[in-house]
Amino acid sequence: MKKINPPKKSPELIADWQTLQRIFIRPENDAAHATLLKYMDQILFGLHDFLKKNVGITEEISLKELSDSCKDTTISKNPEKKLADVITDLVKNIAPHAVNVASPYFIGHMTSAIPFFMVHLKTIVAALNQNVVKLETSKVVSIVEKQVLAKIHRLIYNKSEHFYDIHVQNTCTSLGAFVEGGTTANLTALWVARNSALGPKNGFAGVEKEGLPAAYNAYGIERAVILVSRRGHYSLRKSGGVLGIGNQNIIPMNVDEQQKIDTTSLQKMIREIKQKNNIKIIALVGIAGTTETGTVDPLRKLGEICAENGIHFHVDAAWGGPVLMSDKYRNFLDGIELADSVTIDGHKQFYMTMGCGMVYFKDPTRMDAIAYHANYVNRPGSVDLGIKSLAGSREATSLILDSALKIMGTNGYALLLEHGIETAKQFAEEIKRRPCFELVTPPMLNILTYRVCPPKMQEELKKDDENIKNLINKKLNAINRTVQRVQRETGKSFVSRTTLNIGNMPEGNVVVLRCAIMNPMTDMKIINKILDEQEEIYRSRFADDL
Amino acid sequence: MKKINPPKKSPELIADWQTLQRIFIRPENDAAHATLLKYMDQILFGLHDFLKKNVGITEEISLKELSDSCKDTTISKNPEKKLADVITDLVKNIAPHAVNVASPYFIGHMTSAIPFFMVHLKTIVAALNQNVVKLETSKVVSIVEKQVLAKIHRLIYNKSEHFYDIHVQNTCTSLGAFVEGGTTANLTALWVARNSALGPKNGFAGVEKEGLPAAYNAYGIERAVILVSRRGHYSLRKSGGVLGIGNQNIIPMNVDEQQKIDTTSLQKMIREIKQKNNIKIIALVGIAGTTETGTVDPLRKLGEICAENGIHFHVDAAWGGPVLMSDKYRNFLDGIELADSVTIDGHKQFYMTMGCGMVYFKDPTRMDAIAYHANYVNRPGSVDLGIKSLAGSREATSLILDSALKIMGTNGYALLLEHGIETAKQFAEEIKRRPCFELVTPPMLNILTYRVCPPKMQEELKKDDENIKNLINKKLNAINRTVQRVQRETGKSFVSRTTLNIGNMPEGNVVVLRCAIMNPMTDMKIINKILDEQEEIYRSRFADDL
Repeated sequence: MKKINPPKKSPELIADWQTLQRIFIRPENDAAHATLLKYMDQILFGLHDFLKKNVGITEEISLKELSDSCKDTTISKNPEKKLADVITDLVKNIAPHAVNVASPYFIGHMTSAIPFFMVHLKTIVAALNQNVVKLETSKVVSIVEKQVLAKIHRLIYNKSEHFYDIHVQNTCTSLGAFVEGGTTANLTALWVARNSALGPKNGFAGVEKEGLPAAYNAYGIERAVILVSRRGHYSLRKSGGVLGIGNQNIIPMNVDEQQKIDTTSLQKMIREIKQKNNIKIIALVGIAGTTETGTVDPLRKLGEICAENGIHFHVDAAWGGPVLMSDKYRNFLDGIELADSVTIDGHKQFYMTMGCGMVYFKDPTRMDAIAYHANYVNRPGSVDLGIKSLAGSREATSLILDSALKIMGTNGYALLLEHGIETAKQFAEEIKRRPCFELVTPPMLNILTYRVCPPKMQEELKKDDENIKNLINKKLNAINRTVQRVQRETGKSFVSRTTLNIGNMPEGNVVVLRCAIMNPMTDMKIINKILDEQEEIYRSRFADDL
Repeated sequence: MKKINPPKKSPELIADWQTLQRIFIRPENDAAHATLLKYMDQILFGLHDFLKKNVGITEEISLKELSDSCKDTTISKNPEKKLADVITDLVKNIAPHAVNVASPYFIGHMTSAIPFFMVHLKTIVAALNQNVVKLETSKVVSIVEKQVLAKIHRLIYNKSEHFYDIHVQNTCTSLGAFVEGGTTANLTALWVARNSALGPKNGFAGVEKEGLPAAYNAYGIERAVILVSRRGHYSLRKSGGVLGIGNQNIIPMNVDEQQKIDTTSLQKMIREIKQKNNIKIIALVGIAGTTETGTVDPLRKLGEICAENGIHFHVDAAWGGPVLMSDKYRNFLDGIELADSVTIDGHKQFYMTMGCGMVYFKDPTRMDAIAYHANYVNRPGSVDLGIKSLAGSREATSLILDSALKIMGTNGYALLLEHGIETAKQFAEEIKRRPCFELVTPPMLNILTYRVCPPKMQEELKKDDENIKNLINKKLNAINRTVQRVQRETGKSFVSRTTLNIGNMPEGNVVVLRCAIMNPMTDMKIINKILDEQEEIYRSRFADDL
């Protein structure tokens, strides 16, 4: 019963050469100019509505329904939609089912609100479309990147004016690199550490050329390890796997009650390893802001231990690094300047858009250990940034950071960071005030963990009976899993959850609610609402436990 | 003699909390709305002027001068500039010294013009700021990513409808992954190949856990190698280094006169390795579009060899992959569906902005070999894309590709790709017509290499005297280096140069001019101008050689 439509105005789009060529030229006429701008309006302000309305991971449409609607795997031969329709579709149909990470009620992860100017800066980078793998596709942008690297290097290491004069635009040395994120930053640092620890020596061409098994032979070792706090990010384990060391050789070190690496047992471990003579310690990693608890390890002490033992000291400051901009709290990172390498993320507390990690090296020649050349690019001695880099072609995110530093100043960033740290402190006080909750790890930076733990159960946990403790803990774990899930699904706010191995629980695993405070709009009023909701969920579902 | 200024209007900017909070909220009033839009106008169309005026890597201001102007390494405490000034600065002072990769005269690298809508799409991704490492910070965007992965997987492998029904939204399987670029795509593929070749077996927990030296012991081998054409991208060598195999174990295989991997000597090599019994072949890499010459290896033949010998077959189609969308030329990639893994770049011939690579796997369970979990994210069985991924936090570039496919259709892309291939062919014909040039590698896809080689020298090269040949070749190398450099510095157009190891030159190294044709505005008129300029540079500098 199909009926052919009258040939009014065919909705079918056809790919043709003239249209295609036009989309490569920016329009000269006013109408086209206005249209392109109108789209930007829609993008900037149409999305705005979504950002006001939706919070967290709403379950209005279930995951099942969403994935059912995304099952068509054919690509249309002819164009399916015009740009205008694609944008409308993204704004009306995709954005409402994305996650409103910009909401002040979204305090569960390290992805949060960003200043709106970051979107403008990202757009500039996209429009220029430079490729910083080489000078020939980036020119001044590579030079600016070297400058920004020096600026952040200085923030960390604060070397002499003379040092930066020599290295800022030196084509032979590297103060660091922009990478995709914290994971690739950690990987790059440990790659350099591995290659330095197992470098060329009498007849052995080095691990990068000959591989790990040959390196173990040349160095007469059977195992290489990397030591890191039990709170270290999983990217460190992953790096161990990728680099061929084996992820079980990323040795998790015990932490003290404050969640900091226990330096006594660390030193004992190092002594034991050194006695064995057949194990090489490639690096020791200190964390400046653990993902789960925001803890900063005792960096100065770790740096001293590394210096004594000739170990590469890496600091994963993906989260905490920017705190160096706060005069009030930079002492938390005291000793970071002892690090041989440092990871900092741009898309975390520099408030940049996704996809900006960085890695820095105290010694500007250390990255030579990972240099690669090719005939058509990255020739030795050139400014080509791709010579010492995990990635090849790469976006010029450095331009965004450079601009943001100019717009914000360190003082601007400091205000944001201090707000986070101080709000987290008040948050912790509020938890202590509320009988229904237990603070599990107090915030040092702006991350804290706690759990629903009503007074009756708190009493039980004080008893000296391990069995009862474990039983109560299991019950609490179930309760907290439920509270977090229900709150997430209700969609008004979002905290995350994780499982910590806490000393006072015999069987260890404690399910906690986890918050990271970095949105400047998140205040105690909002936090109290979030806590109220959690109490309410608890009361309505587990009333009999009260 | 300092004099305090009258308090007219201090130019000094100060970071204050109210201002900071405002930049996190999109403005409600019309004036602010208009201002933000005005900036976008400046970004889109201010940059336009630069894009019209400048071509290639102009030397109007020398590199030395540029780097001298980028030596200040202090970060200001107070804000240095307002957003408006930062944007103006980028448009007026940075852009003119960047490289106009969008110029149709810029045909030297794989970075080229992009359709303007890509900038809009990138802006949407930035404004949403989703983090696809996990569902909790991306929701529908992770689901869309899985769908796009299935679409491109289908383009490569064309499995059954049933297959895609099962896997498109399957939270346990993965058809591929979005990564930063071709290098990380190749690295991911070879990481998977390494872990599959040296996986867990009786008492051995697998290379990812225990490391390479333990794996070699468990498998009774002394060496692991990866075979790849001499024309393979340097990222393959780099991957060998990173993965601990050692980059000298990425074995370069000879190529035939067409620059394709020589399958006879390849098969001989495989037989020899297998006889030795102590070397494991982790993968064989076929190239679909080599960086230097655009050559596609005989993929079907390579696939068959791999199948016979139980070797992981990886295809690096970073450049050539999108040709699958052209009905006319997809036969160039015949046999790609035999690949266990395939690399394709989004920022190359999908014409996306920087920073989009992809890797695909024929078997949707293969990526299990690189799975990582953490307590707070990436829990087993979740949609969390970060479980099987080199990177952690990641931008949602998949949204851009999905939208672009809808706007362009495969036919739209096909027109662009066919224009490149056919223009390159005409380019080659033109070179053959001009006595002053020699075509070195004819284009198969849209890349070709040639050199200035005047008739007199062409005659000399035909002689049977190796010494003369080498002498002439050296002279030609110097000439071509100069021609390329002078043309680049003149700033009207840009072709790149590389050094090829060509059979008929005893000492091998032939400096060639290299062109990649992907800009739809690059036509024969422009190419003739580029060739004319090269002839002119040659004649004016080396006239005595004529």
